[in-house]
Amino acid sequence: MTVIDVPAREGRGARVAAGQRFRVIDVEGGQVADTFAFRADDVSEYHSAEHTRVHVSRLFPQVGEPFVTNRRRPILVLEEDRTPGIHDMLCAACDPERYTGLGVEGWHASCRENLERAMADLGEPHIEIPQPINLFMNIPVRQEGVLGWETAPTGPGDFVTLRAEMDCLVVVSACPQDIVAINDRAPTPVAIELLDG
Amino acid sequence: MTVIDVPAREGRGARVAAGQRFRVIDVEGGQVADTFAFRADDVSEYHSAEHTRVHVSRLFPQVGEPFVTNRRRPILVLEEDRTPGIHDMLCAACDPERYTGLGVEGWHASCRENLERAMADLGEPHIEIPQPINLFMNIPVRQEGVLGWETAPTGPGDFVTLRAEMDCLVVVSACPQDIVAINDRAPTPVAIELLDG
Repeated sequence: MTVIDVPAREGRGARVAAGQRFRVIDVEGGQVADTFAFRADDVSEYHSAEHTRVHVSRLFPQVGEPFVTNRRRPILVLEEDRTPGIHDMLCAACDPERYTGLGVEGWHASCRENLERAMADLGEPHIEIPQPINLFMNIPVRQEGVLGWETAPTGPGDFVTLRAEMDCLVVVSACPQDIVAINDRAPTPVAIELLDG
Repeated sequence: MTVIDVPAREGRGARVAAGQRFRVIDVEGGQVADTFAFRADDVSEYHSAEHTRVHVSRLFPQVGEPFVTNRRRPILVLEEDRTPGIHDMLCAACDPERYTGLGVEGWHASCRENLERAMADLGEPHIEIPQPINLFMNIPVRQEGVLGWETAPTGPGDFVTLRAEMDCLVVVSACPQDIVAINDRAPTPVAIELLDG
């Protein structure tokens, strides 16, 4: 068993083999984990939120259902959910432009840059930027399709277990968002726990 | 005024200048129009559904609100909506893999291929495949985030008016989907009407 610590506001990646399981853990609670998966031998294939929504006819898969790629092939399965069951798959990763738009002056860490750095560390410096699986993120869909921005409802140690359906590169970013409430304005670490190998 | 007819199951593109308005018209009614917009001088910037949802805090913009790019800049504004007001921005464009998954044997027209062909005709054969603005498409979000697949509620001649906020390449595909009910299983034409120039 290998544990990869993802410090607050940073990202980390791992190679995960087909059939292998891993957990994404909210170490202290109340923290969003932006999660990405790319096919290991061809990173132009990656998890696609818009294809997954069509595949499962839901905004987010239920336990037992897959996340599929932009070629509509399963890449991850949501095997276990030891959280309150609230996750988001509607929102883009935060990026430098997001923080500029929120009034931040100068550089601010972002999930997009965390993704790019982690993928470069895995040997893949040239990627498309997919929409993430925003684990633990609480974006309720209200009347007329209005979105809320609520704090993640996870407690310390809450986790999901995912199973890889193909050899893939997985990146998890401990979201640095501290302007809106999703991380209770105090970003904290997450962890990736690789099981079965 | 220029009208570009988009035959049933096909796609067409146009160059639209910043400030120019155009209409997307459901000619016979009950037909989905997958709509895409790319920055004219750099097609790596394009309308991004996941960035727009964050920008407007809604599943779809209201009249007067923008669609933004993957760099969070307005590219289109929804200026007028002469339809029942139902559109989708959750679902990927249909593609060959979608029809294979639905049990179709052999080739079936798709919005993805329509997009690629129209962009190649505009001189851009190498593009990322963004999630479309699915005008007129009726995908209700039900309890627990379950998605419905309903027929477009538009009548003959219903349209939206969009204004370009930057020079862009716009592609509209008259969705060829005839297996699920979104086009009442009988795809029909749409039209693009270029105003102001």
